[in-house]
Amino acid sequence: MDAIDVGVLGATGVVGQQFVSRLARHPWFRCTWLAASERSEGKAYKSVAPWKLSTPIPETSADRIVEACVPGRGPKVVFSGLDASVAGDIERAFAEAGHLVVSNARNFRMDPLVPLLIPEVNADHLSLIPEQRRAKGWSGAIVTNPNCSTIVLALALAPLRAFNIRAVVVSTMQAVSGAGYPGVPSLDILGNVVPFIGGEEEKMQIETLKILGADGGRSPYPAVVSAHTNRVPVIDGHTMTVSVSFEQQPPIEALADAMRNFAGRPQELSLPTAPKPALVLMEAENRPQPRLDVDLGGGMAVSIGRLRTCPVMHARFVALGHNTVRGAAGAAILNAELMHAEGLLQ
Amino acid sequence: MDAIDVGVLGATGVVGQQFVSRLARHPWFRCTWLAASERSEGKAYKSVAPWKLSTPIPETSADRIVEACVPGRGPKVVFSGLDASVAGDIERAFAEAGHLVVSNARNFRMDPLVPLLIPEVNADHLSLIPEQRRAKGWSGAIVTNPNCSTIVLALALAPLRAFNIRAVVVSTMQAVSGAGYPGVPSLDILGNVVPFIGGEEEKMQIETLKILGADGGRSPYPAVVSAHTNRVPVIDGHTMTVSVSFEQQPPIEALADAMRNFAGRPQELSLPTAPKPALVLMEAENRPQPRLDVDLGGGMAVSIGRLRTCPVMHARFVALGHNTVRGAAGAAILNAELMHAEGLLQ
Amino acid sequence: MDAIDVGVLGATGVVGQQFVSRLARHPWFRCTWLAASERSEGKAYKSVAPWKLSTPIPETSADRIVEACVPGRGPKVVFSGLDASVAGDIERAFAEAGHLVVSNARNFRMDPLVPLLIPEVNADHLSLIPEQRRAKGWSGAIVTNPNCSTIVLALALAPLRAFNIRAVVVSTMQAVSGAGYPGVPSLDILGNVVPFIGGEEEKMQIETLKILGADGGRSPYPAVVSAHTNRVPVIDGHTMTVSVSFEQQPPIEALADAMRNFAGRPQELSLPTAPKPALVLMEAENRPQPRLDVDLGGGMAVSIGRLRTCPVMHARFVALGHNTVRGAAGAAILNAELMHAEGLLQ
Amino acid sequence: MDAIDVGVLGATGVVGQQFVSRLARHPWFRCTWLAASERSEGKAYKSVAPWKLSTPIPETSADRIVEACVPGRGPKVVFSGLDASVAGDIERAFAEAGHLVVSNARNFRMDPLVPLLIPEVNADHLSLIPEQRRAKGWSGAIVTNPNCSTIVLALALAPLRAFNIRAVVVSTMQAVSGAGYPGVPSLDILGNVVPFIGGEEEKMQIETLKILGADGGRSPYPAVVSAHTNRVPVIDGHTMTVSVSFEQQPPIEALADAMRNFAGRPQELSLPTAPKPALVLMEAENRPQPRLDVDLGGGMAVSIGRLRTCPVMHARFVALGHNTVRGAAGAAILNAELMHAEGLLQ
Repeated sequence: MDAIDVGVLGATGVVGQQFVSRLARHPWFRCTWLAASERSEGKAYKSVAPWKLSTPIPETSADRIVEACVPGRGPKVVFSGLDASVAGDIERAFAEAGHLVVSNARNFRMDPLVPLLIPEVNADHLSLIPEQRRAKGWSGAIVTNPNCSTIVLALALAPLRAFNIRAVVVSTMQAVSGAGYPGVPSLDILGNVVPFIGGEEEKMQIETLKILGADGGRSPYPAVVSAHTNRVPVIDGHTMTVSVSFEQQPPIEALADAMRNFAGRPQELSLPTAPKPALVLMEAENRPQPRLDVDLGGGMAVSIGRLRTCPVMHARFVALGHNTVRGAAGAAILNAELMHAEGLLQ
Repeated sequence: MDAIDVGVLGATGVVGQQFVSRLARHPWFRCTWLAASERSEGKAYKSVAPWKLSTPIPETSADRIVEACVPGRGPKVVFSGLDASVAGDIERAFAEAGHLVVSNARNFRMDPLVPLLIPEVNADHLSLIPEQRRAKGWSGAIVTNPNCSTIVLALALAPLRAFNIRAVVVSTMQAVSGAGYPGVPSLDILGNVVPFIGGEEEKMQIETLKILGADGGRSPYPAVVSAHTNRVPVIDGHTMTVSVSFEQQPPIEALADAMRNFAGRPQELSLPTAPKPALVLMEAENRPQPRLDVDLGGGMAVSIGRLRTCPVMHARFVALGHNTVRGAAGAAILNAELMHAEGLLQ
Repeated sequence: MDAIDVGVLGATGVVGQQFVSRLARHPWFRCTWLAASERSEGKAYKSVAPWKLSTPIPETSADRIVEACVPGRGPKVVFSGLDASVAGDIERAFAEAGHLVVSNARNFRMDPLVPLLIPEVNADHLSLIPEQRRAKGWSGAIVTNPNCSTIVLALALAPLRAFNIRAVVVSTMQAVSGAGYPGVPSLDILGNVVPFIGGEEEKMQIETLKILGADGGRSPYPAVVSAHTNRVPVIDGHTMTVSVSFEQQPPIEALADAMRNFAGRPQELSLPTAPKPALVLMEAENRPQPRLDVDLGGGMAVSIGRLRTCPVMHARFVALGHNTVRGAAGAAILNAELMHAEGLLQ
Repeated sequence: MDAIDVGVLGATGVVGQQFVSRLARHPWFRCTWLAASERSEGKAYKSVAPWKLSTPIPETSADRIVEACVPGRGPKVVFSGLDASVAGDIERAFAEAGHLVVSNARNFRMDPLVPLLIPEVNADHLSLIPEQRRAKGWSGAIVTNPNCSTIVLALALAPLRAFNIRAVVVSTMQAVSGAGYPGVPSLDILGNVVPFIGGEEEKMQIETLKILGADGGRSPYPAVVSAHTNRVPVIDGHTMTVSVSFEQQPPIEALADAMRNFAGRPQELSLPTAPKPALVLMEAENRPQPRLDVDLGGGMAVSIGRLRTCPVMHARFVALGHNTVRGAAGAAILNAELMHAEGLLQ
């Protein structure tokens, strides 16, 4: 198989850096085009990307000249790590011009014709694409992945749909890398907790139901979510406590089996970055922990621990996922892998 | 008024240090006796207490010779910061010998004849004392304060009893000082979250209902609590997100008024360390935060923020309290102040 | 004595907030004027200052309307917490217009006619003021305090001048509050060390010699300083290890005595915020530590520990000071106290 | 080549875990024997090792039954991660019984007949072994690696020996993992600096000169080292600032070339875990940083930054190394690789 050329929009930001880093060792995709704001245009990538990852900047990208985000110049497939303030216009322009935009930005997530995709959970939502093209008159398309905390919650809940979820109360402890760079000032978070993240609770409450929903998400899942979102002094990894109620009390062991055996299209198709298992059910009473478990499954697995009865709702547990991998760049790359496997990247 | 002599059991531990520090500037109590394990007996306090507070060791206690925990030797009123592994036997022996034991240990908290006291919430539970003496044959007595996370939750819920609480889902983010010294190893918590604290969830779920209950706590409050407890890299201050359901949906503004106006016996009696207000209702969307708000009311107030509707239950909010002040030594001292004001320290 | 009206330039920044907070409880000065950039002009102080201190915003300033930094409007004495990017022009204009500018900004620190003042160390440098006025044609004047790390070093070295210092090698571990707000991004410093602070090493190497020097600092102290400056994840408090060589090896106990007995004009005059002692010499082998010792002397003392022989140079020790108190706002206020006591604020 | 069976003494501790983890993927060595204290004897490794690494416990060791530290039972080659309180007797007994003990403990480091080995720096010190055997009457032998901070310093200084080092002043900022588990209490180090590590300064001052010395270290290198050692809230990676004086001032560029081109026997022999380059000379003004650079060269490289003139001594720079890899288990494994390549493991 020939490598598929791909580009990155917003390549200099924190999510863009994750794209560049992860694509450098990808078996299918070859990153041949980096685009960012005009400030970076014409300069070597390494001179304009404030590299914040603990893996070095890939040699294949370090000296690449950054281009402007102009449709038609780069390869057909582009990943978008653009900031929401500019992503709307740029991504639309690229889709119009025929690009397949695999986006991490929030702008089109709640568009009823745009898949809000987690390949293990709602691979069938890709069926929206023909309708999207027709309705919007695009020759390309846009596919999005959810917000970094939503994706962890939705993956944890997906196998529990079999028990008819009615309500979810979730309280998060989110890493600072979720806020980008410079992001959270150290004076705000060293030795501290900030019990508020702008817009995050709404995203978790709404996106989750679209993802778990039917008809490409246009028929939201019939449950209610209440999210408390908090920032804690952790570099990578969103941890959350979750209480869930169902139509009726299920046996905890049945929930455990459903989580343990959960797999979706990525696992069936053995996509390159699909984690196996998708959910890691941990036995130790004090796990998962971000420092120890965030990299499970190459950062693409979600860890679950402390699954037990909830005295108020029916069941409760702890979930953890890597917010810049499973919750951002890694999510978009898995989306693209699924699209390729389904013949949608031609 | 003459100062009342008091002693401290377990004076060298983290809670004991808080007792010593806070009593040094107390207008009513004079700390004249320090007791600890045999290892410390006969030595100067400053040479055996691994001082961990940012206020210096009080001069009046620094050179005091530490004694053994033997009943009858110290003053009538003793505060107990003993570890639960030894507190049961020692506190019982002191109560038998006629001491009034104002304890922070967990051993007697759920004893149906021992008040689990928060002066603002259940001052009437002191009425258990005569019965306690009769039933146990003690000439002294034991009064306890709740666990450091429970006390924050119970204070936040107390004014909401007027609306008939039915269920509570709480998720905590607790400081490392709650685990004593040496306590949590730094390798476990630096840049990390540990989603488990042994025995803590049970305490929050059970103690809260005794505190809010009737008949000295023997008739528990008719609600259900589900607690998720987590350790985070914060020095002082337990933060928690709380979702509450009531008999029926109350207006949020009515809840806010109840919290804002909440006061109890300590405020009525103007006890020396009673915070005014007891609950600080904050308007800013990102408060309370431990680093900025933990010392409100001299560390004795509980801060509440983000009071709003909960899509799953009825209301939700964030609560914060100082775990070693309001949640430990400061709580016991306020208990003793109330007992003195009620004529129970004679 | 009547209170002296004072104003604050740059009142909304981190240093400005420290000025406002500390002036609110000052026995001599009354803060009656707050000035900041045009963005804040005409608005209530509490609505434009992103308050980052753990003490609440003072009631006397919370609702005060912020004004523009225009000379002639505010009181004669103004404290400057302005950013260096604007401090040069504004402070000069205020001095020209007759204001006494007590500045924390770096712009005029190395001006040979401007005192770089630490009242305990070089109170005699105030003698520059008449010459400053003459040469610059100002009816007012500018007095500055040193950089936050320099001030700690200079205070620690001051009593050692008696032994004829020849060389100093210092390596700092500096708190994030030294960089202002938003300052250091949390992604850069959580669980990390950044071994570089722009311009800081040069300041320590040059300012120190002016401060310790003769003739108002125009004759720098005849020694050489090598500074390594590092940022560490600490909120407040700059810690530093210091190796010093002298004309000849002094007895360590003589150095200890000199430090222990060190006092200057602020102590002689019993200025309101003068720490007694100015230097706290600690015996414990693992002190000073920022979390435990940064607030000694109300944040105005410098703590010294581990004074011992250096196998390469002659002596070595650890020094710690509060960077936003002794190293910024508190320093400027002590400067103003000295100026008032010397009759220079009329 | 057949795999060489090796064992681990003290397998359950933090250093022991690093041995087990790193040996699991080693191309030459196969870990077939795990020994620890009697408390763990007879139990599965996974049930007694409080696993603290972010890589999972290797499957090949998880279920292995831990044995007692009895000579003669395990393979000929044993790595020792024993605590110093027991390492002396046990390691001696193993060497007597014919084992080749590759130790990370400090007990034999300063024994004049025991190599204190850094393969890049003093591979020739292995020549002590025959004499060690004769003098001590051992059929086996002991080889040690230096303390975790010393090893970083010695590697950084090694290429500078060509310029005749005279004196070194080093100030460290050391990670908590260097203190083992439970090690440093979180109350001591969260948001704090502790300017003291027991025995560490002496080790850096003495071990460094033995390592750089001649005649197997029995003729110490003729320089003087002054070490200030500090603990900071970092998980992995010891950072240090270093000032060095030489016989005469060398050009900084010559020092840079020497560092950049530094290589030793491990690089010549292409030993499996030898980093290439051994020293990574960084250009960015704010590097190295532990969070970004600690894993360079698989954790076996030492990073150097900010090489520049020192106004007091001759040159100064920042050095960083991974304290539990290059400074402990990885160091011992590289020692064993060198010994194997030199025919000393037969």
